[in-house]
Amino acid sequence: MNDNRKLPKLPSIKRLPSYLHELKILRDNDQQVVSTTHLAQKLGLEPIIVRKDLELASSPGSPGVGYSIQKLIEGIENFLGWNDENPVFLIGVGNLGTALLGYKGFSEYRFNIVAAFDNSPDKIGTTIHDKPVYDIERLAELAEAMQVKIAILSVPCEFAQKAADHIVKSGLRAIWNFTNTPLALPPEMIQQRVNMAGDLAELSVKLSGKMWDNVDI
Amino acid sequence: MNDNRKLPKLPSIKRLPSYLHELKILRDNDQQVVSTTHLAQKLGLEPIIVRKDLELASSPGSPGVGYSIQKLIEGIENFLGWNDENPVFLIGVGNLGTALLGYKGFSEYRFNIVAAFDNSPDKIGTTIHDKPVYDIERLAELAEAMQVKIAILSVPCEFAQKAADHIVKSGLRAIWNFTNTPLALPPEMIQQRVNMAGDLAELSVKLSGKMWDNVDI
Repeated sequence: MNDNRKLPKLPSIKRLPSYLHELKILRDNDQQVVSTTHLAQKLGLEPIIVRKDLELASSPGSPGVGYSIQKLIEGIENFLGWNDENPVFLIGVGNLGTALLGYKGFSEYRFNIVAAFDNSPDKIGTTIHDKPVYDIERLAELAEAMQVKIAILSVPCEFAQKAADHIVKSGLRAIWNFTNTPLALPPEMIQQRVNMAGDLAELSVKLSGKMWDNVDI
Repeated sequence: MNDNRKLPKLPSIKRLPSYLHELKILRDNDQQVVSTTHLAQKLGLEPIIVRKDLELASSPGSPGVGYSIQKLIEGIENFLGWNDENPVFLIGVGNLGTALLGYKGFSEYRFNIVAAFDNSPDKIGTTIHDKPVYDIERLAELAEAMQVKIAILSVPCEFAQKAADHIVKSGLRAIWNFTNTPLALPPEMIQQRVNMAGDLAELSVKLSGKMWDNVDI
């Protein structure tokens, strides 16, 4: 609120991990610098967009030389707060929850599911994909002890709001919502929704030809 | 292109499954009609937005009476083309792919993963979560035989583009891309991306306080 820098745009933010991904591949291939053109091609973007996006990482490229890959990686990680490990809890070890516990793709971005929670006696006390499953009643206690601020919500949708209320009361600050249910949350709580059903709807409408364009709607 | 109706707005389309979800719960509780206000509350939206969204389903509500739940369900399913089963292929039976094969949440929207494909001899010929795994070389043949137009892409990201090219050549029309990699595709191909890393980036930036608002950016 007391910050008068220009607000970063959401699409730019959402593209940053794709840059990070490409840049790390280049670094692993012992490259030092990269051009806007190369990144633009790799990500299917206009060079002007790439330049704008990378302003967020505050590492201006030099014309004719390009960007320092290492500096750009650090700049992006710094901007996103991804230079440290981000511990995350997962709430609801059903079908999707179990899947997410086993998914290794988050670790590239240093998001680490450190524990899971459920209310089923069959699951509490077990280990799934090397992650301990605790009683949901211990959420507040363990969130404080392990300094976790983010919860992945993957309970069946009929329990989504109740579980969300419990997460709020337990002092976490953000919910990454994988259920099909939008959540009513206090305004200070951050909600990020993975709306897979919404994606399916968009895809269906595009397939049916009811939307004209693939990209810019 | 030759259609001069007003174009549906993407956010409205993405919300339709949430309406569908609520409406089916109401129907299962033997309700006949629903008010805009009720739906607005349930989905955390303004009533005016609900009314606009539901225009897509072309079932005008009557003032003071509300919407016929059954007609609304039919209208939405019809608009989305969800009144029939939608067969889908899954490409890449790794960690995430296996998870998606076991995920039951798609069936609510009549999306049904009918088969999976991989190039690993260890996986070809097996059955995972009751879905057969075929050799990726058989993709074109089976897409035609089973009339499948949509592929879920869940290969490791270094193979994403190659697999996508193969999907295009095999005659499918849409890719639901769960990899971390944006794809270069011919313009007639429909791409829907699940950008989980982008979601994580958005969530991180919101947590850091670099974005002011939770909703309308």
